Amino acid sequence: MRFDLKGYLAERREHVNAALMKILDDEVPRSRIARAMAYSLMAGGKRLRPILCLAAAGAVGGTPDIAMPAACALELVHTYSLIHDDLPALDDDALRRGRPTCHVAFDEATAVLAGDALLTLAFEILASGSGTAGDTARQWLDVIREISTAAGYRGMIEGQMRDIEAEKKALDLAALEQVHARKTGALIEAAVVSGAILGGGGRGQIAALRAYARKIGLAFQVTDDILNVEGDPRVMGKAVGTDADRNKSTYPALLGLEASGAFAETLIEDALTALEGFGERSVPLEAIAAYILRRRR
Amino acid sequence: MRFDLKGYLAERREHVNAALMKILDDEVPRSRIARAMAYSLMAGGKRLRPILCLAAAGAVGGTPDIAMPAACALELVHTYSLIHDDLPALDDDALRRGRPTCHVAFDEATAVLAGDALLTLAFEILASGSGTAGDTARQWLDVIREISTAAGYRGMIEGQMRDIEAEKKALDLAALEQVHARKTGALIEAAVVSGAILGGGGRGQIAALRAYARKIGLAFQVTDDILNVEGDPRVMGKAVGTDADRNKSTYPALLGLEASGAFAETLIEDALTALEGFGERSVPLEAIAAYILRRRR
Repeated sequence: MRFDLKGYLAERREHVNAALMKILDDEVPRSRIARAMAYSLMAGGKRLRPILCLAAAGAVGGTPDIAMPAACALELVHTYSLIHDDLPALDDDALRRGRPTCHVAFDEATAVLAGDALLTLAFEILASGSGTAGDTARQWLDVIREISTAAGYRGMIEGQMRDIEAEKKALDLAALEQVHARKTGALIEAAVVSGAILGGGGRGQIAALRAYARKIGLAFQVTDDILNVEGDPRVMGKAVGTDADRNKSTYPALLGLEASGAFAETLIEDALTALEGFGERSVPLEAIAAYILRRRR
Repeated sequence: MRFDLKGYLAERREHVNAALMKILDDEVPRSRIARAMAYSLMAGGKRLRPILCLAAAGAVGGTPDIAMPAACALELVHTYSLIHDDLPALDDDALRRGRPTCHVAFDEATAVLAGDALLTLAFEILASGSGTAGDTARQWLDVIREISTAAGYRGMIEGQMRDIEAEKKALDLAALEQVHARKTGALIEAAVVSGAILGGGGRGQIAALRAYARKIGLAFQVTDDILNVEGDPRVMGKAVGTDADRNKSTYPALLGLEASGAFAETLIEDALTALEGFGERSVPLEAIAAYILRRRR
């Protein structure tokens, strides 16, 4: 029987959205900050990081529920990074997913603080994820370390900094991979590894899932670059051809379109190889990897 | 024998500075973000929050070393909040402690990201504070929850948001206390409680130290307001009389100068009462409380 990825993603997204909604609901009526946080958090993201986290917990035999606080925390971290990246001093974007960005809908001060608050809340949720018995406390600490390192100044933030600096100079292939590994790859890796830890995975399983995550993280970026060249703006939900206009270093620009496609395919093959040994439980992760390639067409 | 507070503070400050310096040293040569983080972190703060954290660990019989990662994390959180508060979109301050603020010395994008990175690094350090044995993992999770809640959208960030909103309207005494409890009080409380948890304090001890922290946190703000009216700019290290110029709600403005002084004294008496039962070990915390009053003169 073929795995119904579309149905799987829709169902998981709904669960994640319900959990996210519950976090801020009480505060929204009385707090401007909470309204700004909720505005950006509930703007209709794909919830890729939370879903990867839950799927990784499932791949090692855990129930998805056990990883839900981490799944939510990952989306809070992702959302904070979008709010701050959109600020006038950074990418200066007025629209995201067709809606005014946080600093446009509220104001710049509120957007700075709402981003700060989402990042901080992520760690509050992670620290509250464990029961009082203390038996899983070590796992939650490992997850906090994993996510904070990925999101931090040697990970996501360094990637964003290099991305800003790269607007002034061309990158070679190695440098481009370094930017992506940090800017988007690190948090995707943290999502998968967090799920694997909380699902009770052993060291070998966690290492295999980390390898899977690194490959799909990079493949995701390569196909994003390809879609920016050849994509349909209606499918992408955003403007295409913008990278070339900005003279931005991309895989198609450095490798050519065809070689970029072949590179993405190799990455996905490697990701699937890393999943050998998980059996039926890794079917959702396999389907997600295949989907990253397929969305090109 | 009289307790030598000045020597105690200087010695602790030096320990904290050495620990803080070690965190970023390796990254500074190769990373602009790390340079911006170090620039603001090593700008010569009093290290009040770290010292309170270490002193609280000592008050319950712990060694100061055990709480040092938390002490450092608290200073990272405090420094991040200063960098973001100084941004053009918020308080728009070009100078802090006589030096250009982070966005002036670097640029606005770097300052946003350096603040984000300091906040994130705080949680990375807290998650790495425990040994691998797992026996103290629960305590570190409790500390992460304590600090993230204090720093978050119901704590410090909400205080900052209300402070911005309060520039447009006068506050009454209750509202003013709410702003301060969040903006500065919450993190001071988290500092003391974190030290008490990591030092191995029992529930009663933690509750007593929490009460102490609330009182000194508010007293600190009341005396700050008083000093802004009657202080010597050379002693304060910043301009005085600025609150009245801005028509800002303060304790002297709402209560009068004399009643504000009496209020601060009552708060410190309450703080000292909370320390009864700790014996010799709480002498540093007592001395810090007394110093908050004394710095008026």
